[in-house]
Amino acid sequence: MGASRETILETIQNYVDLVATGSSADVVALYADGATLEDPVGSEVRTTREQIAEFYGTLDGLEQSGRLLFARVAGNEAAFAFELATKAGDETYTLAPIDVMTFDDDGRITSMRAFWAGEDMVVS
Amino acid sequence: MGASRETILETIQNYVDLVATGSSADVVALYADGATLEDPVGSEVRTTREQIAEFYGTLDGLEQSGRLLFARVAGNEAAFAFELATKAGDETYTLAPIDVMTFDDDGRITSMRAFWAGEDMVVS
Repeated sequence: MGASRETILETIQNYVDLVATGSSADVVALYADGATLEDPVGSEVRTTREQIAEFYGTLDGLEQSGRLLFARVAGNEAAFAFELATKAGDETYTLAPIDVMTFDDDGRITSMRAFWAGEDMVVS
Repeated sequence: MGASRETILETIQNYVDLVATGSSADVVALYADGATLEDPVGSEVRTTREQIAEFYGTLDGLEQSGRLLFARVAGNEAAFAFELATKAGDETYTLAPIDVMTFDDDGRITSMRAFWAGEDMVVS
């Protein structure tokens, strides 16, 4: 029995909200033990909870807003586009990746791969 | 040396256009030898050119339109959302999946995985 579609969609919405405005510890808590993280796709895969915590730790203290744009669930996996806007001084850096995730039976994230490139960053 | 970002984006646009209005043979020609196809994610993976041709053959003769909504390239991989509308009598069936693809050095598709579920089909 995998996680339900509703549980997976809830985890995705929580993820987007927490990446933007939660603490990195809140984000890391969405991940299952043994989860992997590849962000961006093609970079070295993070495989320990410490590495995942370090990755999201860079977001702590930033002034950000997040918005889920589009999500598709298929079985225990999902792909979704979301927008993350970061204010830095007078400028706002907006990045809208497509993330692909797999989930365990409780809807915790077992893997995350983020599709984006430097060209996708918009400064306004 | 992988395919360039431009080549990958071109293949994606060709794919969306050809799935909608090309022949299935045109679509299959975008795939590299040995490519795999999993549509939807969680279903049996098609591993031969014959199986891939059979999959797209079901689209031949349909009245369809396609539109690329959002694409993200990372290295030799990409994820993109697109919309495929199929007219059948007075009704239009619209499905907007997120596809994840890998590409060879020439920009041919080496794998495709389509994220969608029955709940995503819109009838109008």
